[in-house]
Amino acid sequence: MFGIWGHKQAAEITYYGLHALQHRGQDGAGLVTADGENLSFHRGQGLVNDVFQRADFKKLSGHGAIGHVRNLSHDQGTVGNVQPLLFHSQAGSMALAHQGLLSNAHEIRGKLEKTGSIFQTTTDTEVLAHLIKSIDPLPSEDSIADSLNKLDGSYSFIILTEDKLYAALDPHGSRPLSIGKLGDSYVIASESCAFDIIGASYEREVLPGELVVIDDQGIKSRRFAERQGRKINAMEYIYYSRPDSNINGINVHAARKRTGIALAKEAPVEADVVTGIPDSSISAAIGYAEQSGLPYEMGVIKNRYVGRTFIQPSAELREQGIKIKLSPVRGIVQGKRVVMIDDSIVRGTTSKRIIQMLRDAGAKEVHVRIAAPPMKYECQYGAVEEELIAAKMSVDEICETIGADSLAFLSVDGLESAVVGKSSFEQGMSMKCFTGESSF
Amino acid sequence: MFGIWGHKQAAEITYYGLHALQHRGQDGAGLVTADGENLSFHRGQGLVNDVFQRADFKKLSGHGAIGHVRNLSHDQGTVGNVQPLLFHSQAGSMALAHQGLLSNAHEIRGKLEKTGSIFQTTTDTEVLAHLIKSIDPLPSEDSIADSLNKLDGSYSFIILTEDKLYAALDPHGSRPLSIGKLGDSYVIASESCAFDIIGASYEREVLPGELVVIDDQGIKSRRFAERQGRKINAMEYIYYSRPDSNINGINVHAARKRTGIALAKEAPVEADVVTGIPDSSISAAIGYAEQSGLPYEMGVIKNRYVGRTFIQPSAELREQGIKIKLSPVRGIVQGKRVVMIDDSIVRGTTSKRIIQMLRDAGAKEVHVRIAAPPMKYECQYGAVEEELIAAKMSVDEICETIGADSLAFLSVDGLESAVVGKSSFEQGMSMKCFTGESSF
Amino acid sequence: MFGIWGHKQAAEITYYGLHALQHRGQDGAGLVTADGENLSFHRGQGLVNDVFQRADFKKLSGHGAIGHVRNLSHDQGTVGNVQPLLFHSQAGSMALAHQGLLSNAHEIRGKLEKTGSIFQTTTDTEVLAHLIKSIDPLPSEDSIADSLNKLDGSYSFIILTEDKLYAALDPHGSRPLSIGKLGDSYVIASESCAFDIIGASYEREVLPGELVVIDDQGIKSRRFAERQGRKINAMEYIYYSRPDSNINGINVHAARKRTGIALAKEAPVEADVVTGIPDSSISAAIGYAEQSGLPYEMGVIKNRYVGRTFIQPSAELREQGIKIKLSPVRGIVQGKRVVMIDDSIVRGTTSKRIIQMLRDAGAKEVHVRIAAPPMKYECQYGAVEEELIAAKMSVDEICETIGADSLAFLSVDGLESAVVGKSSFEQGMSMKCFTGESSF
Amino acid sequence: MFGIWGHKQAAEITYYGLHALQHRGQDGAGLVTADGENLSFHRGQGLVNDVFQRADFKKLSGHGAIGHVRNLSHDQGTVGNVQPLLFHSQAGSMALAHQGLLSNAHEIRGKLEKTGSIFQTTTDTEVLAHLIKSIDPLPSEDSIADSLNKLDGSYSFIILTEDKLYAALDPHGSRPLSIGKLGDSYVIASESCAFDIIGASYEREVLPGELVVIDDQGIKSRRFAERQGRKINAMEYIYYSRPDSNINGINVHAARKRTGIALAKEAPVEADVVTGIPDSSISAAIGYAEQSGLPYEMGVIKNRYVGRTFIQPSAELREQGIKIKLSPVRGIVQGKRVVMIDDSIVRGTTSKRIIQMLRDAGAKEVHVRIAAPPMKYECQYGAVEEELIAAKMSVDEICETIGADSLAFLSVDGLESAVVGKSSFEQGMSMKCFTGESSF
Repeated sequence: MFGIWGHKQAAEITYYGLHALQHRGQDGAGLVTADGENLSFHRGQGLVNDVFQRADFKKLSGHGAIGHVRNLSHDQGTVGNVQPLLFHSQAGSMALAHQGLLSNAHEIRGKLEKTGSIFQTTTDTEVLAHLIKSIDPLPSEDSIADSLNKLDGSYSFIILTEDKLYAALDPHGSRPLSIGKLGDSYVIASESCAFDIIGASYEREVLPGELVVIDDQGIKSRRFAERQGRKINAMEYIYYSRPDSNINGINVHAARKRTGIALAKEAPVEADVVTGIPDSSISAAIGYAEQSGLPYEMGVIKNRYVGRTFIQPSAELREQGIKIKLSPVRGIVQGKRVVMIDDSIVRGTTSKRIIQMLRDAGAKEVHVRIAAPPMKYECQYGAVEEELIAAKMSVDEICETIGADSLAFLSVDGLESAVVGKSSFEQGMSMKCFTGESSF
Repeated sequence: MFGIWGHKQAAEITYYGLHALQHRGQDGAGLVTADGENLSFHRGQGLVNDVFQRADFKKLSGHGAIGHVRNLSHDQGTVGNVQPLLFHSQAGSMALAHQGLLSNAHEIRGKLEKTGSIFQTTTDTEVLAHLIKSIDPLPSEDSIADSLNKLDGSYSFIILTEDKLYAALDPHGSRPLSIGKLGDSYVIASESCAFDIIGASYEREVLPGELVVIDDQGIKSRRFAERQGRKINAMEYIYYSRPDSNINGINVHAARKRTGIALAKEAPVEADVVTGIPDSSISAAIGYAEQSGLPYEMGVIKNRYVGRTFIQPSAELREQGIKIKLSPVRGIVQGKRVVMIDDSIVRGTTSKRIIQMLRDAGAKEVHVRIAAPPMKYECQYGAVEEELIAAKMSVDEICETIGADSLAFLSVDGLESAVVGKSSFEQGMSMKCFTGESSF
Repeated sequence: MFGIWGHKQAAEITYYGLHALQHRGQDGAGLVTADGENLSFHRGQGLVNDVFQRADFKKLSGHGAIGHVRNLSHDQGTVGNVQPLLFHSQAGSMALAHQGLLSNAHEIRGKLEKTGSIFQTTTDTEVLAHLIKSIDPLPSEDSIADSLNKLDGSYSFIILTEDKLYAALDPHGSRPLSIGKLGDSYVIASESCAFDIIGASYEREVLPGELVVIDDQGIKSRRFAERQGRKINAMEYIYYSRPDSNINGINVHAARKRTGIALAKEAPVEADVVTGIPDSSISAAIGYAEQSGLPYEMGVIKNRYVGRTFIQPSAELREQGIKIKLSPVRGIVQGKRVVMIDDSIVRGTTSKRIIQMLRDAGAKEVHVRIAAPPMKYECQYGAVEEELIAAKMSVDEICETIGADSLAFLSVDGLESAVVGKSSFEQGMSMKCFTGESSF
Repeated sequence: MFGIWGHKQAAEITYYGLHALQHRGQDGAGLVTADGENLSFHRGQGLVNDVFQRADFKKLSGHGAIGHVRNLSHDQGTVGNVQPLLFHSQAGSMALAHQGLLSNAHEIRGKLEKTGSIFQTTTDTEVLAHLIKSIDPLPSEDSIADSLNKLDGSYSFIILTEDKLYAALDPHGSRPLSIGKLGDSYVIASESCAFDIIGASYEREVLPGELVVIDDQGIKSRRFAERQGRKINAMEYIYYSRPDSNINGINVHAARKRTGIALAKEAPVEADVVTGIPDSSISAAIGYAEQSGLPYEMGVIKNRYVGRTFIQPSAELREQGIKIKLSPVRGIVQGKRVVMIDDSIVRGTTSKRIIQMLRDAGAKEVHVRIAAPPMKYECQYGAVEEELIAAKMSVDEICETIGADSLAFLSVDGLESAVVGKSSFEQGMSMKCFTGESSF
């Protein structure tokens, strides 16, 4: 999710910002621009690269823009659900981009439909648009603030009208949302890595319960709800964000490396080499290696060229041992006792496969260390609860199931102190996936 | 370059093998199969993923196959030059794949054209085909061996006829070429990483001056030229090959890490963090960090999603600081003295840009360490001599030009002992890019 | 516009029906299916061939379907405006396809937006959906009939819900809309040629002011408005429909041939050959030739292969005489006095160009005969009034402007008696483009 | 097949020329340009529209060009066989385009391969290139003339070198090949319709046994073989060429219309309407109608939008009566005795299907009249002999097989006198498909 106001190449800048955020959604991308009088718009299914062509920018005129990348796996995967959503009316147009999960969306939608409202998507995002429009067809700071107040759950929104850019964060600040500056223009992004790619400087976080309004007169801020203690979802640090981003001021690579260091202290093991599962577990593996004094090596490698059009091997070939996404590095693991660092075990099937792969390549022992606690509860980033192996098995049972020589997870306290140090009102994490306790 | 004989899914296996070798050529890919009576064929421009569709395999029948990936930058970039080249005749067909550089190709071609030969490509590969066919329209072990003997330069060839697969390596063994087994089938690959992806076991190297012949009766070997001391091009270890490959028995990641260790010994520096330029310099950077006791950190990150269809920023946006391929990680480098490890300096422009990027992101000092000697001489892997900055400047001048606080290169001896230990008849490198001395 | 209920391959049948109707809209196509519980949907920009792939039919399950082809030239050309429009709600879904022009759409939309309604398209079609939903979120026969009653202008609608297919026609029946049978299934189509392609039999016309309801129990009919005298837009016969269609029971080719016969009686001329401008004027030209006793010849030919991706010639090449869409047949017209039959003169530029082309090819005289009256008034099928040459000039002036040796139009009475014989309550045409008199 | 010399937009002009010739080959298209020093080249599979993009013209520089469209059905359908074929050598390059069938190609190729020649295609065209190159690597007027003399069969060639354009026709002139002028430039085309599209004037035919040479000095002509009596393949007039072309001076539409007139005299029938099978039989049907006094009507219509990407109906739907390419016009044929004019009966299956379709649409009687003699012998334009129904059955048997009420063919004499009047040395047809007698 990215927004900019006050730049004559707003659409192109947003395109590059979305590139930096591509890991946050790979199924669809969209972009809406504002030129003071009209909103223009382009979106499509696939990666940012696939969705936009040079020629598309001709119609995307204006000095304001917002963009979004989306995973559609849990939705009906139609292009109509790709964001930003765009709404035209005779009074004024409005575009919305959203990240989060609204817990009362279904209920609000049901009420609105009974009074004749027609929804164009199956996303929870759209209820905010209808709430705003039901107050006044012309969107305003007041109607947006009032409408946000009716939402429950976790959310960050960027809204664009013909002449204004709005950004808002839920009262717990469960998602990252940062403000930057590029020359005289203001930029908003889900992650700070989008500032680095465009050469923008970081200014500050959007605060929990804050509505930021940016237009040709500059930036204004108002509170639409009482601010609660900061509870960023822990998964943002563990695997969702890019290592080069700062999330609420904390560098993700450094945080992950610290989880590896903590893990080496909590769960040491006698071994020859440490390896991480690419890409998200490399930082933790380096931390584990540094702390343990063991050498960090590339025991597993990721094939960079396996893309969307890749032809999947037949069952027969898979049985014969074709490895597509990850390959073991025989020259590294052969005859070695390997510590394999990963960021999570969801169903256990991937871990089992990789361990077998390492053994087939000659590893003498495979010790699995997970740089996070066991994922026992359903959360937006993971799988449904019935699929989570840690919801059903003890650590020993998991170890046996995946075929490791030993297995250990980082403790909840260890995770917290590695990432945020000591939790505070300003700085804290939601541990819902691990403890089941919601802050909301 | 990949080949297989004796597998009923020869084409699919070759497809996965080419995936593992994709880094060796990204502009075109091709595949030829043999079913005992006919050769079938598919090729195209672009990545392996783009060139092949599921449906293409229907026509690629047979239990033998060879495939190739190609960089076309230095050729006329037409699909006609994508390999394997395929030649039909009433006597028998033949397909050729080649890696290397034939120094007497132009001369041979001129002679053949004067006697009426018509060439279909502008590649040097094709002269071998004409030499073979001018001896006998039906290719044979003898005519191939005789024709190889007329070639000068560096080369590795895989040749496919209706009923045989041939593999050959020049007398100095300047290129890697390995033999593996997949069940009862023999496989040939430029790099051993192609064996890991398909689950094949490594058998041995093709030897310098050896012609290997594989058919339904098994594998045979003959020498077509006197074997010389092994002189693998050093660039195969330094940046060209994949870290998970073993090149002439030496793991590439491990070799690179050892160059980093040697570099830390030869050129230590007081600093806070060590970072490597992705992807090829990460292993050396980890070695440098281990040896120096400094922490290894991700100071520079590579955008994984910048593909072929990526829209290049305008000059105006580039001036405003848009970074596309590599981004600095402000959270890591800000206020730090950074050791930046790279594998080469070619023109110096990229180094200069990255150093400036790190300074803009707040790095206090940037010390550049190159895990190879200065590249002073034209070689197939680099640029033409006029473009090589090290051909024109001293190390101090380069340091000033690229704007580093200090600069050091690994010595030629340091490189050699880090990679191959002590050179031998069996194990050695061509250092032509660095010393100008050719082994040929 | 096409619909079917009660066929297990509803989507495929609709695909073929849309092919037959392709001439009615070439910028976009869409298809919605109903399986009793859900609506599924696919649409895109371009020809039917471009929009649908074999794989799309997998998701288009169900025994009911509606489809639409669309010209987007006068709309904002986004895929969001391609029909059928689809609306989901918790109470029930609904898809709409429409042909016609609603004269009070803007006014209704303004009212609905003031009470919070959000429109997803810029088409007039969408107001009907909002009217229906504002009565009851669950669409029904009653709410559809009531909503239709609020519309002014010309319209034909096909509506699909999870378990029903509706078809409706405005009280004047200004558009063609026919009912057919394919085995036990009912089909609805804008033109009867869609029945011929799928092998369906023709049953009857949807009547002016009628709402037809088809479901698993069969077909029902109700009147939602007082039926007025039939006023099919004359342009449907003159150029819009396919020659093989029956429009309100009258074959289009035969009607056009009769206009040619009438034209030969009203405006004979001494000449050598009669030629028609392909494709829509061929029938009239054959009629003119038969009546006049002159031979019908192919004096002008249409290039069949000029498609959407055709590269337009540069201005320079156009001046040098490149002819792309139509070419003169020198072997036919050289030295001849040619009667050139066309169905309309809009701006006059095309006529002028063709006449010049015929003269360049050696025609001695070119006599233009138009098988319809002068188009003097704006209508949905033509251009805006300022562009119509007949709104600004006399017939003599037009003749001089286009460079013809003589020019004549068919009279309004001649057109009427040629097409429908004697007008009646059951059978009549709207002549609005020619007389400016609206029936509505 | 098209060529031009001396025009600064040679590539674009050739592109439009190939459009006009698209009906002569729909599986592949190619274009080679010459700028005095180099040949440039683009080709691909599919229609001209699909193969060329605007950007391709940037590299196609030069004032000379040749182009070709190709049917690949009877070849191995690879892009390598798409013409023009292009041959580079150190002495000089050469591009060839060919239409025809060389009867001794296999034999010549065998001889050349035995002396070491490598062929790059499976086309017979390539033997001419090898013959020329075996005389001298630098192509010349003499070596081309000598090489043409070694060929047997029917052929027309266009050849392009860096600085010359050559055109040649076999001694019997079995193919059409015309010379035109566009300003000061010379153009060559298989059919004169390519001159009309680009606004060129017709000059004359290439004569049997003539080699025309065009360069910056103008046009020259020499005879490479004794001229024989002109024997254009009759199929060029009957169905292969476009109706607007003049073939050896005779307009194709007019010739076909005369065959219809002759057919009406030879085989009259009592009926209500005459209809032709689109597109190639329309002219003959109009002639039959004029002569017989029966009205010409559109009893069968062709769907214009069924393209390459069209989804074929399943067997089940086909049985249910889906008609894709041709539809009957119920409004025309219902209750009528129909004369159905076609240009040929090959296997009989298509005729049978159309007759049944007309009966299903209500035709009372269907009388089939073919505007050519029975096709009894294999020829390049038709099918292999075993498939030809007229090679195995009498006219009565065919009539019964296809289910017609009556059937008649035009006589060989009737065809000849309708098309060329009285045969002469200058003007004549090869009737090989009908009589089995070859002129060669």
